[in-house]
Formats: sequence, structure tokens, C-alpha cells
Amino acid sequence: MELIYYIDLLGAMVFAISGAMAASRHGIDIFGAAFTGFVTAIGGGSLRDIFLNLRPVWVNDGNYLIAILAGVLIAVLFKKVLDKLARTLFLFDALGIGFFTVVGVQKSLLFEASGIAAVVLGMFSAVMGGVIRDTLLNETPLILRKEIYATACLSGAILFVLLDMGGVNYNLNAFLSASLVSVIRVIAVRYQLTLPIVGG
Amino acid sequence: MELIYYIDLLGAMVFAISGAMAASRHGIDIFGAAFTGFVTAIGGGSLRDIFLNLRPVWVNDGNYLIAILAGVLIAVLFKKVLDKLARTLFLFDALGIGFFTVVGVQKSLLFEASGIAAVVLGMFSAVMGGVIRDTLLNETPLILRKEIYATACLSGAILFVLLDMGGVNYNLNAFLSASLVSVIRVIAVRYQLTLPIVGG
Amino acid sequence: MELIYYIDLLGAMVFAISGAMAASRHGIDIFGAAFTGFVTAIGGGSLRDIFLNLRPVWVNDGNYLIAILAGVLIAVLFKKVLDKLARTLFLFDALGIGFFTVVGVQKSLLFEASGIAAVVLGMFSAVMGGVIRDTLLNETPLILRKEIYATACLSGAILFVLLDMGGVNYNLNAFLSASLVSVIRVIAVRYQLTLPIVGG
Repeated sequence: MELIYYIDLLGAMVFAISGAMAASRHGIDIFGAAFTGFVTAIGGGSLRDIFLNLRPVWVNDGNYLIAILAGVLIAVLFKKVLDKLARTLFLFDALGIGFFTVVGVQKSLLFEASGIAAVVLGMFSAVMGGVIRDTLLNETPLILRKEIYATACLSGAILFVLLDMGGVNYNLNAFLSASLVSVIRVIAVRYQLTLPIVGG
Repeated sequence: MELIYYIDLLGAMVFAISGAMAASRHGIDIFGAAFTGFVTAIGGGSLRDIFLNLRPVWVNDGNYLIAILAGVLIAVLFKKVLDKLARTLFLFDALGIGFFTVVGVQKSLLFEASGIAAVVLGMFSAVMGGVIRDTLLNETPLILRKEIYATACLSGAILFVLLDMGGVNYNLNAFLSASLVSVIRVIAVRYQLTLPIVGG
Repeated sequence: MELIYYIDLLGAMVFAISGAMAASRHGIDIFGAAFTGFVTAIGGGSLRDIFLNLRPVWVNDGNYLIAILAGVLIAVLFKKVLDKLARTLFLFDALGIGFFTVVGVQKSLLFEASGIAAVVLGMFSAVMGGVIRDTLLNETPLILRKEIYATACLSGAILFVLLDMGGVNYNLNAFLSASLVSVIRVIAVRYQLTLPIVGG
């Protein structure tokens, strides 16, 4: 349990880094970068918690905001180094969305969302921070464009709910479902897989 | 009561169709269309429930997500047929916003919103799904442009609150107020009525 | 206490005026102006309350919506006069964000947010209405561009939390912290101060 807490903090930091770096590509000032990093990091989980009618975890636990602040500082101070580490950051992101999806599904089930709503809320936990970031930066959100991103989260979320219904051990289930998300994401980018366009 | 529940599900499906079709006009993939359909369908009611500090209905009741999924599938599979049914879909939409407005006002009053807030929240129930859809698709929301859409909802919401204060029977009130929304909307489009521009 | 209530209503009205005027610069109709005014006025405080898992104050207390309606009417009727009063409105706005920041921090602490979350939520109370307004109008939010705006709110929010921890009298603290926000904002605009750009 304690390990999951620290992974969650680490995840918030990594998302904050990616948000701040996206902002920096738009010629935005330091505050704007921090703001974008913050929104990217807390957006998905906060939306899930609001739909569950819970208070988002960062409101009471200051550690999340400290982790986000650290992420923003890292992005600002080491921007040039990080730009060269794009491949490593991509892997972190692929692992991160797997982790956030599973945590999101699990929390939703715990607070009595239906199975199908837990799938949606798990996916939201992982992707909505990025959607809000892109909307703020006045871009069409990445997940509405061609890349396979949210679909990977959706697959892992569905697997988790199915295995959970089938009585599979929680830890094994979490590992398998999170891995599915990361693997689909990596394969999709490696082989440039895309989904078909509607009516195309 | 049961009838209202099924109309509500039908309404979610129709909104999901319209959202998915709007997405398809932007060259968006199948997942993006589903996501946009979902957001259009649940956006307004969810925002109302969040302002009322309630859990949105689709989180616990999986039928809403199934109805939305059905709507997205219909939009994807029958896109070309639907494109030719624009007039029928418009009528469905005009009826739908009347229904959603009245349900929204009624729920807000039930959970002790003030009369004026119930008017705003009733209108939100009907139009905010579309606002979020347009914002995601990086367009200026339709309701901020010239057409009479939200104004129709607002008129019906005001009528409902006034008749409710006057002690008019709920079913009659709901019928009259929803009809007012639909009629204003149809007349506005038929005769291309618009509101004046500020400072114009 | 009663004085604060009336200042809060006045603040909602001033924000509604500024929102409606921003909309009018986009050739938006009267309803769109009212909608934008409303969103600008209630956006920040509502987001704070939603994060605190509280019901926003305007849902139960109709006076806020009446104040907002009055603000929209003023903007529509006296648009040309107000355009000439840009300097006065700027001062009102600088005072308003100081007030809203302090009220937001105080409410967040009262409802047991952590100190660092109270800083974020206080800043949100003052600036997020404008962020939502700009996003709806399909612009990159002002606070992500170069001007010092949210940074002023952030400074005041941090000062309030620090003085509060130090046991400073609440009224003195509120006065000092709100003043800091307004003074930073005025100086930043007067001397065209900006924050550095990331990686620039």
C-alpha cells in the first residue's frame, strides 16, 4: 500500500514534468508552465474523484502539490536535458498511464461505481489531465487525434474489471492490466498503429 | 416515472449520436468519436449534478453508458444514412433539449437549489454537453454564436419555475415548459431568428 | 461578516461585467454575453468549492445570480461608457482578485484543505473564472501568457497562509494579503513587468 502511495506521487511528478514541457513549447512563462504542469498532473484524478463525489486527494494531502512543484522545477531547470530524453520520458508515460488507469478503476469500484463506469473513470484518471492541458493550450486534444493512447487505457481498464469479476487476485490483476496498457501503447507508437477514422 | 427513465436513456443516446457525428466531421478516429459522444451525452447533466454536489447518475447506473455506446455505434455504422436525416435529427434535438431542461430544473428544485439557480442548472443540463463538445473540438461553442438555442432552454426553465411557484400540476407544467423550449427552437431555426449582438 | 458578503456580491457583479465585455469584443449575442459573464463570475469560486466537495454558494443563494444579471445588464447597456473607463475597471479588477484570493484561501483552510492546497485554491478562486472565459472564447488563457496576474494572487495567498500560521490576526492578515495581490498587479501592469519564459 505504501509503495502505491509513492508511485502515485512519482506519477504526479512525471505528469507535471510533461505538462510543464508542453507549455514551454508554447512560449509560456514560468507561472504558466507551473500551472499547466499542475493541471496535467491533477486533472484526471480530480475529475474521477469529482464524478465519484469525493474530495480529490491533493486537497488534503500536501505531498502531491510538493511532488508537482518538484516536477515543474525539474522541467524548468533541465529542459534541454529532458528534450534529449524524449524516448525515456515516453516509456515513463507509458508506464504511468498503465498505473493511473488501474488505480482509477480500483478506486471507482471501491466507491461503488458500476463496472462500466469504473472502466470510463479509470481511463479518465490516466488521460483527462492531458485533455485539459491541450484544451488550455488551445489545441485539439491528442486523444481525439489519430494516436492510440486512451484506447490503450480503455483496454487495460476493461481487462481489470473482467478479471476482478472473475475473482483474480488483486495484485496479479493490477500487474496484468497495467502491463496491457503500457504494452499496447508502446506497440502502437513503435508500429505507428492507428484506429480507423469514422466515415472515412 | 419509469417512462421518464427510458426517455432519459433515449436522450443520452440521441446526444451521443450527435456528438459522435460532430466528431466525425473533424476527421477524428473511432475512439475520439466515442469520447466526444460520451462527453456530449453526459456533460450537461453531470455538470448540474456536480454543482448540486450529487454523484452523476451514470456513475452508479450502467444503463446510461450502454445507451451512449449504442448511440456511438449507430453514428459510426449509419453515418451516411444519418447525414441524410438531418431534419429528423434536428427535431429529436429540439425535443431532447426541452426534456432535459425540464428534468434539470425539477431535479435542482428537488435538491433545494434556489429558483433562479434551478433555471440556470436546467438550461445547463440541456446545453453544456454541447458546449464541452465544441470546446474539445476547438470551436467557439454554438451557444455563444448567433443561433437561438440556450435561450429557448432558458425560456422553458423560467416558465417551469414560475408555474411551479404558481402551484400548477407537475405533469402539465413539464409538458408546457418542455414544449415551449422545443417550439421556440423550431421557430427560431425555421425563421432564422437571432438575438441582437452586444454593442453592435 | 455582512460587509464581506456584500463585497462578494459586488465582486461577482464586477467579474460579470468584465466577462460580458470580453464576449462583446467577439461579436457574441446578448445571451452569449450573459453566459460568458456568468461563467467568469462563478467559475473560480465554483471550482474551489467543487474541489472542496462543497456546493457552490450561488446554487442556494439566489442573490449571486441577481448580482451577475445586474452586471451583465450594466455591460450591455453601458458598453460605450465602460470602454472609456478601462483604467477604473482595471483598478476594480486588481482589488477584486485580491479580495477573492483571500476569501478563497480562508474558506479552503476552514474546510481543512492543507496549507499548500489552500494557496492553490485561493489563487483558483480569483483566476479560474477568467481561464474558463478565455477557453470558451477559444483564446489561450491570459494567465498562460506573459502578464503577471495569477502570480500576484499566488503571492498574496502564500502570504496569507504564512501569516495565518504565524498567528497574525485574521482581519489584519486579510487586509495585508489582499493588498499585496492588488499592489503587485498594479505595479506589474504599470511597469510592464513579466516573468521569464521557460527555456527561452
